[in-house]
Amino acid sequence: MKSSVFRVEQMDVPGGSEDIVRGGRDLFSLLPAALHGVERIGVLGWGPQGRAQALNLRDSLDGTGITVAVGLRPGSRSAEDARAEGFSEVGDWLEVAAASDLVILLIADAALAAHHEEIFAVLKPGATIGLSHGFLLGHLTSIGSAFPDGHPVIAVCPKGMGDSVRRLYQQGATVNGAGINASIAVHADPDGHAWDRALAWSIGLGSPYTFATTLRSEYLSDIAGERAILLGAVHGLVEALYRYFRIEGADPVTAYERSTEAITGPIARTISTDGLAAVRAASGDEELFDRAYSAAYGPARDLVAEVYDEVADGTELRSVILAEQRLATRPMTEIGGSPMWSHSAEVHARRATAAQKIDAVTAGLFVATMMAQVDEFAARGHAWSEIVNESVIEAVDSLLPYMHARDVAYMVDNCSRTARLGTRRWGPRFQAAYEQIALPHLDRPADPALIKGFLGNPAHDALSAAAELRPSVDISV
Amino acid sequence: MKSSVFRVEQMDVPGGSEDIVRGGRDLFSLLPAALHGVERIGVLGWGPQGRAQALNLRDSLDGTGITVAVGLRPGSRSAEDARAEGFSEVGDWLEVAAASDLVILLIADAALAAHHEEIFAVLKPGATIGLSHGFLLGHLTSIGSAFPDGHPVIAVCPKGMGDSVRRLYQQGATVNGAGINASIAVHADPDGHAWDRALAWSIGLGSPYTFATTLRSEYLSDIAGERAILLGAVHGLVEALYRYFRIEGADPVTAYERSTEAITGPIARTISTDGLAAVRAASGDEELFDRAYSAAYGPARDLVAEVYDEVADGTELRSVILAEQRLATRPMTEIGGSPMWSHSAEVHARRATAAQKIDAVTAGLFVATMMAQVDEFAARGHAWSEIVNESVIEAVDSLLPYMHARDVAYMVDNCSRTARLGTRRWGPRFQAAYEQIALPHLDRPADPALIKGFLGNPAHDALSAAAELRPSVDISV
Repeated sequence: MKSSVFRVEQMDVPGGSEDIVRGGRDLFSLLPAALHGVERIGVLGWGPQGRAQALNLRDSLDGTGITVAVGLRPGSRSAEDARAEGFSEVGDWLEVAAASDLVILLIADAALAAHHEEIFAVLKPGATIGLSHGFLLGHLTSIGSAFPDGHPVIAVCPKGMGDSVRRLYQQGATVNGAGINASIAVHADPDGHAWDRALAWSIGLGSPYTFATTLRSEYLSDIAGERAILLGAVHGLVEALYRYFRIEGADPVTAYERSTEAITGPIARTISTDGLAAVRAASGDEELFDRAYSAAYGPARDLVAEVYDEVADGTELRSVILAEQRLATRPMTEIGGSPMWSHSAEVHARRATAAQKIDAVTAGLFVATMMAQVDEFAARGHAWSEIVNESVIEAVDSLLPYMHARDVAYMVDNCSRTARLGTRRWGPRFQAAYEQIALPHLDRPADPALIKGFLGNPAHDALSAAAELRPSVDISV
Repeated sequence: MKSSVFRVEQMDVPGGSEDIVRGGRDLFSLLPAALHGVERIGVLGWGPQGRAQALNLRDSLDGTGITVAVGLRPGSRSAEDARAEGFSEVGDWLEVAAASDLVILLIADAALAAHHEEIFAVLKPGATIGLSHGFLLGHLTSIGSAFPDGHPVIAVCPKGMGDSVRRLYQQGATVNGAGINASIAVHADPDGHAWDRALAWSIGLGSPYTFATTLRSEYLSDIAGERAILLGAVHGLVEALYRYFRIEGADPVTAYERSTEAITGPIARTISTDGLAAVRAASGDEELFDRAYSAAYGPARDLVAEVYDEVADGTELRSVILAEQRLATRPMTEIGGSPMWSHSAEVHARRATAAQKIDAVTAGLFVATMMAQVDEFAARGHAWSEIVNESVIEAVDSLLPYMHARDVAYMVDNCSRTARLGTRRWGPRFQAAYEQIALPHLDRPADPALIKGFLGNPAHDALSAAAELRPSVDISV
């Protein structure tokens, strides 16, 4: 990572250090210099990320003369919403792409796969291509294609859902910034200013800190992570635990509270404020936590490895594209029909009075799965900032708080189509692993080597280092 | 299909007729003529299919002078078993391949993917390459390769597991044949005798009737079918139903009997003897059956379509090859750890006295899934013989009776690695579809159009036509 405008710092991580740049509203005045000749930013797409990023960039660049335009599919119903949010330049995506110096591609993955050539064809000479995850690189590689020559290609990848990117930015207005950490990547740098433009974009979004990655590495950790601990595994885990507690004799509300409610509430908060090891102590039964952890770590690690292999191989991407083709005639399956969700309102209503308890079995299974992802990502060579952001921080500071407020089904169905499809593919695999392997082995003694590996895991230090740079306000949803 | 030795008949099927050849022990004397110059058959591999086919062919060719040799991986522990079964020619697979006129490749799919080039390199000029399913064609296509020129390439694909192929053959010794139907395909026919060799092989295995397909069509229906109603969907269905009945208040034995026991016992037998529609009447509650059928058909059809797309695309095959690579360091996950299976012995012991009942919910979900596969295969253009054998007959006459005798876990883990891996991938998807969509919708009224489509389905006629040619003895396991 390099910059002629911002200060690049070293963050200590296990085994060395990583380049990072701190964000903050005091840096907004530097954005025009860092954007190097960008006078107009075109944000294509108005999904959760498109909307959040267009709004944050517009607000951060207010008064600089740099404008933000919104490009939409012809006939898109989002035009009205974009205008209502105060955007004056809302138009056809190809026209907006043709008139912008930085074109940020936030349309759906399937649309990107179908239309990237048309968009590339209309770009101004030397216009910067911006991405928020590595999907397009995966797709171009799979079809033997590449980004067009002569254009800077950069990525800024917020480690949280679009709604969080906007919400925390607004909450940070009264302090000097709050937001979602982001990774940045420079895939092509023909004019030498790509890193500064990416940093400006990231700081403009409100990222508390920005770390470096590559498009390939971001793609792998992002797509694999959302299929595992960020979404898929959580969904599978609560489905398995709810039925487990029900069969053990718990009534529906208690089973819900011991499974979903414990994870999205006190477990997420404990990790966010005190780290992973604190959950063990807070569970009230370390011996049971250790047995649950030991029973779940192996099967969870196997599944994370399988997910990772299929993402790296392109198999997962093929399945998404096949699913998108079927969606033309078959709607996406429902994720909210499980009996558990009919008790959400009752559980939420009890929050004011019911004690928020951490069930030791639930905690052991959840933390084991999170650590399985951390360890698998580390074994695959990801940088520590990427590992802890994609495995821990994004979960406890963005996704789980949303699940707590709105429900798992709502949250999943407000993510990208690629994430929604991945949750449907992999959630049931995790559920089966918990039901068929982990839960039946709860009565086995804990594995001392696994527990030692957990308590001494380098992720704790990486997480502490990242925590020093984390949002200064808690997300409110 | 053509033959200069056997009588090709027409079987009436919906919309026309299909070529078939009846089997029978009275035809064994014609096998040498039909094999056209094959003096030595090399069966490579000693898994369930390799063992069963080597034994059946040897017994059928007894006294003809045509010999059957068994080729194994160097150092294989199966050599002893093969010799104990009376084979005198047991040797290194490459040596056996080099010395045989018909080389039947029944080694594991992963071994076939890894070693097919070595095997092809040692073949005699003009030796016939024999397969029992289309996996190798899928693999060769995926790597841009092909079968070697100048060799006949044929397939004989029994529509049942290896143990059934042997068991029914032995049971058929006292009547004029009993066995597992088989499809045959001719992929290359340089000397004009490929169809007769394939028919001789199929009749020698004891197939009651043989129908024609292509390697591609066989591959698609075989791999998709075992991931759906033959194995994957059954496993997912019983996992979902057991927990459903437990949460509804049933004790473990009753929940087992209403789910697994009903499917592997009376439902399978009713379909085998009286057809699919008979299950509805036998359920004792047609109105509830119809509601269950209506709730499950849509999600099951969606999943069968997804499975089919991924098999056709090559995605599923990629995942198998990736899994095989991981198996070098991570053993295959356990499928038998679910709480249900700890009650198998008790349920089996009750068979002598307990009434064997068909639960209407279980029956509706199971038959809906079977029909979803029938309808999806028909929509994809498969021949009716292939559809009913891969969706109904193989299930009720081979796999479900084995599950009834030995248990689901035993049966799955005695199938091919490709089938075992597929069950682990897709079973949980079916489970989630039943739990999240079908079972929560049981209280909705039945869909009259779906029920009409079921009762008037052309599959009933296709099944009746096949039933006239079906084994004259019931399988005993």
